[in-house]
Amino acid sequence: VPESDNDDNNSNDNKSEDEVLLIELNTDWQKKYFGKSKCALFPRTSEEVSEILRYCHENHIAVCPQGGNTGLVGGAVPVFDEVILSLKRMNSVLSIDDITGVCVCEAGVVLEELDDALMRRGMCVPLDLGAKGKCQIGGNVSTNAGGLRLVKYGSLRGTVLGLEVVLADGTVLSSLLRENRKDNTGYDLKQLFIGAEGTLGIVTKVAILASRAPEARIVTIFACDTFRKVVHLMVEVKKRLAENLSAVEFFDHESLKLTVDTLPGAKDPFPYADDLKTNIQFYVAVETTVNEKAMESRLRANVLNFARSVCVLAEDGRKSRGKFVSILQKKFRGDEAERNKPNLAQRFVISENEKHANELWNLRERISVALKYAGAVYKYDVSLPTIKMYELVERMRERFAERRMDDKVKVLGYGHLGDGNLHLNISRKEGPCKDTLAMIEPFVYEYVTEHKGSVSAEHGLGAMKVQELWRGKDAEEVRLMQRVKNMFDPRGILNPHKMIPSSSPPLPSKL
Amino acid sequence: VPESDNDDNNSNDNKSEDEVLLIELNTDWQKKYFGKSKCALFPRTSEEVSEILRYCHENHIAVCPQGGNTGLVGGAVPVFDEVILSLKRMNSVLSIDDITGVCVCEAGVVLEELDDALMRRGMCVPLDLGAKGKCQIGGNVSTNAGGLRLVKYGSLRGTVLGLEVVLADGTVLSSLLRENRKDNTGYDLKQLFIGAEGTLGIVTKVAILASRAPEARIVTIFACDTFRKVVHLMVEVKKRLAENLSAVEFFDHESLKLTVDTLPGAKDPFPYADDLKTNIQFYVAVETTVNEKAMESRLRANVLNFARSVCVLAEDGRKSRGKFVSILQKKFRGDEAERNKPNLAQRFVISENEKHANELWNLRERISVALKYAGAVYKYDVSLPTIKMYELVERMRERFAERRMDDKVKVLGYGHLGDGNLHLNISRKEGPCKDTLAMIEPFVYEYVTEHKGSVSAEHGLGAMKVQELWRGKDAEEVRLMQRVKNMFDPRGILNPHKMIPSSSPPLPSKL
Ligand SMILES: Cc1cc2nc3c(=O)[nH]c(=O)nc-3n(C[C@H](O)[C@H](O)[C@H](O)COP(=O)(O)OP(=O)(O)OC[C@H]3O[C@@H](n4cnc5c(N)ncnc54)[C@H](O)[C@@H]3O)c2cc1C
Ligand SMILES: Cc1cc2nc3c(=O)[nH]c(=O)nc-3n(C[C@H](O)[C@H](O)[C@H](O)COP(=O)(O)OP(=O)(O)OC[C@H]3O[C@@H](n4cnc5c(N)ncnc54)[C@H](O)[C@@H]3O)c2cc1C
Repeated sequence: VPESDNDDNNSNDNKSEDEVLLIELNTDWQKKYFGKSKCALFPRTSEEVSEILRYCHENHIAVCPQGGNTGLVGGAVPVFDEVILSLKRMNSVLSIDDITGVCVCEAGVVLEELDDALMRRGMCVPLDLGAKGKCQIGGNVSTNAGGLRLVKYGSLRGTVLGLEVVLADGTVLSSLLRENRKDNTGYDLKQLFIGAEGTLGIVTKVAILASRAPEARIVTIFACDTFRKVVHLMVEVKKRLAENLSAVEFFDHESLKLTVDTLPGAKDPFPYADDLKTNIQFYVAVETTVNEKAMESRLRANVLNFARSVCVLAEDGRKSRGKFVSILQKKFRGDEAERNKPNLAQRFVISENEKHANELWNLRERISVALKYAGAVYKYDVSLPTIKMYELVERMRERFAERRMDDKVKVLGYGHLGDGNLHLNISRKEGPCKDTLAMIEPFVYEYVTEHKGSVSAEHGLGAMKVQELWRGKDAEEVRLMQRVKNMFDPRGILNPHKMIPSSSPPLPSKL
Repeated sequence: VPESDNDDNNSNDNKSEDEVLLIELNTDWQKKYFGKSKCALFPRTSEEVSEILRYCHENHIAVCPQGGNTGLVGGAVPVFDEVILSLKRMNSVLSIDDITGVCVCEAGVVLEELDDALMRRGMCVPLDLGAKGKCQIGGNVSTNAGGLRLVKYGSLRGTVLGLEVVLADGTVLSSLLRENRKDNTGYDLKQLFIGAEGTLGIVTKVAILASRAPEARIVTIFACDTFRKVVHLMVEVKKRLAENLSAVEFFDHESLKLTVDTLPGAKDPFPYADDLKTNIQFYVAVETTVNEKAMESRLRANVLNFARSVCVLAEDGRKSRGKFVSILQKKFRGDEAERNKPNLAQRFVISENEKHANELWNLRERISVALKYAGAVYKYDVSLPTIKMYELVERMRERFAERRMDDKVKVLGYGHLGDGNLHLNISRKEGPCKDTLAMIEPFVYEYVTEHKGSVSAEHGLGAMKVQELWRGKDAEEVRLMQRVKNMFDPRGILNPHKMIPSSSPPLPSKL
């Protein structure tokens, strides 16, 4: 019988501490999902993971794998009393190859710690997300996390080279842990575990292709008046800053307002914009990097040049001096110069140094943190055709306005513009409310499906969206998934009630 | 009963033409593998593919899917008399999205034609390989082709967004054809078909993320004296030219000699190198690009600057004038400048224009074509730890020398340096020979397995290496593959005798 960590200490002094820990492990990051597990295990080796699973398999005991527990769809906490199998003690970086950039580590390494280890060798993880201080590389792999720099690094499906996985019956599949950049021998089974949310096996080791860490970065924020311009600005950015581009994100004015109001230190990057009667509705955050510090000034010149060429007001919007210059320029600039410009943005601001870059970047990165402190929040993470992406946010606002519920909720749109990935968030200061939820679901899912989007671009399905798997998929496809699940986990002990529904599709509802 | 194209015409005039066609379809690119199929079908729609498979499934008739038939492991021709299902009439480009870069097309589109269609919109396929004039995107996906620009574009596993697949029993899985950059809803089943070599289903449509086409490129060839320097040069290139890098390839002197001797027009890029008593053994071909023509001169300056900083002789090796300047420089240059250089390369040459770039690039790209005309060739495509990659070529030469067989064969090493992917080729002018083969196999496979490499980095296993699947893999992993195969194709009608062995592992042999 595997020992629970909580049983390790039998002294009463520690009991309450253990209980606190157990409550923590049963509660998800958003404090929305609560499990009732009485047993959490913290194995240190793949063999220990294997021992646990073998026992659970033999005895039909359900297991919930847990990484950093930052998942947003209730996947990392038990639904009932599943055994919590935490990877947090398997946190060694095993090897880093300076020549190839291949890094092998245990699944429980916290993303930021892995990044730090690589940084010391001039490299970085090809993945970055707001939860990096807590999420684990094994959790990232298990959710196929996208994050902020997909534009630069591509998907984990390309950069994860190998995995060690422990199957439901305790078999350790160690030959999947390859370190070759290329390997076309047989089916690439590791792909099944990428994004499987712990339903097919426990990821215990990861081989990943690190990137060279940039030595300098410049963050630019553009202010736009329409979403159509936001999209065309993105296209221009991808075209003209391509070689140095690492991220193209966007957020709307509602998101900025909430961040500025909620987080101490967060400042509106365009404080004088209103004076100019510009109608700023959207912000596009562009991150560019160079590998060599020596090239920074050249990059700065490029970015500035680009920004000027797409912007109505051709100077940095941050300097207060610029306020009057802008007004004057606007009045006196020749018509012709104006006509040749695409005028995609109203204003822009370019980071002056790393501290300023962080400040600007945080306006995008910390929206989800601001939301957490601003009351109850309903989070949706969807893919949509880029040009139509923001219509969903507008439709949502209309729905609330029609029912005169719009004074109670804030509807925010932001996300990974460069990847066609919208984060739709409905924030309700006064806490959760059934009527609000009923206004959102299933509307959001139906809308997205109708527009051939994805109801989960990057967060996965977890417990939250398990029934949404059917949307936009042939029944045959879902059935194949069920057969894959059954092949790897015939007793259904791995993260039950998550991701793969055991039943048939629900009856269709009308939009 | 589906009609064979060959039966369409019953007039005798056409008979012999049909027979010629059938022989062609039964013969692989290398003219090493010969099938005996009497029936080839050329469906035009997914429904027709479905109709064929349904019939074949019901009647236990084996099918060999065929794309451009450029595969190098005998995968695209029948082993016996399988029905040849050619995709070549399914060659429409269906849509290109200018905003997202997502392109949807039928599987039978020839890679170069797809690239041309994208080029007209300023985009390109994120894949390039020597066979582009003949291979099809469906074949590329089915072999998970790597090609020359993996360094820039990453693997197809990241850029293929969706597939339409017809399963063995005729089911058309159309919901796998997604066009979203990101989609984390359920298992990513399409990954199973990427690289499945036609053993799990027929790929009928592909959605792929196109890249922006660069407007200018510069090719540089470096000449090095040791392989250690080749590798360190690659590391420097990746570090210092990162933003513009699209390929880092290498070839050895033996490869260059064979190309120059075999292909009209191919010229040694360093014709005066011998006079300088440099000991050039290796060439590193670096391709860099910029998205905007206007940036070309800046890129040129960067590349030149880089090349000078790593090179013993600090000027372009192509100009004949340089010969004496070099000698003088070598004699009179201050010791200090010399000491601060890594001296990774002996000489370099930078392309002066697009024509020159092509000329230089062809020295690498056309080695496989030169080999085809130079007699019989034994081709191996392996992954190895980069620093040790070339040892295999040297060991191979030693083996032939030990048996005094080295005057009959040429052992060539070249490949995708940036990806740790070696193409080992043994060329024998006088034609194939059993003793030669016995010197190579299983030695190569054993060597690669022992060094934790991959016995097929990109070409796949096909009929040629089906038994090598066991190498370096736990029996459990192979058994899972067999179960996947069985799940998708329970009657084993799809490309039998390829990739997945039906039997148990062969007895181990000693190195
Ligand atoms: C502030 C914030 C910002 C975020 N930003 C992003 C973003 O930009 N992009 C994005 O994609 N996500 C984002 N997320 C969501 C989340 O951080 C990611 O999904 C992350 O990859 C989860 O990692 P984790 O270690 O916390 O996994 P957990 O939350 O612990 O687990 C997630 C799922 O994976 C399973 N799992 C975990 N570890 C393993 C393992 N070793 N083996 C098998 N199964 C395992 C769990 O059972 C669960 O189903 C964000 C979350 C927060 C809180
Ligand atoms: C000169 C030359 C250079 C090459 N360079 C490279 C290189 O750099 N990198 C690289 O990876 N390869 C390279 N190759 C190998 C080859 O070109 C690739 O494997 C290519 O992707 C095969 O495409 P194809 O359409 O010719 O496929 P085929 O040869 O017709 O088929 C290959 C395999 O895929 C299956 N298949 C084909 N189409 C389908 C379909 N629609 N659905 C299901 N199964 C299908 C076939 O049954 C077969 O098993 C090269 C080949 C040549 C001749």
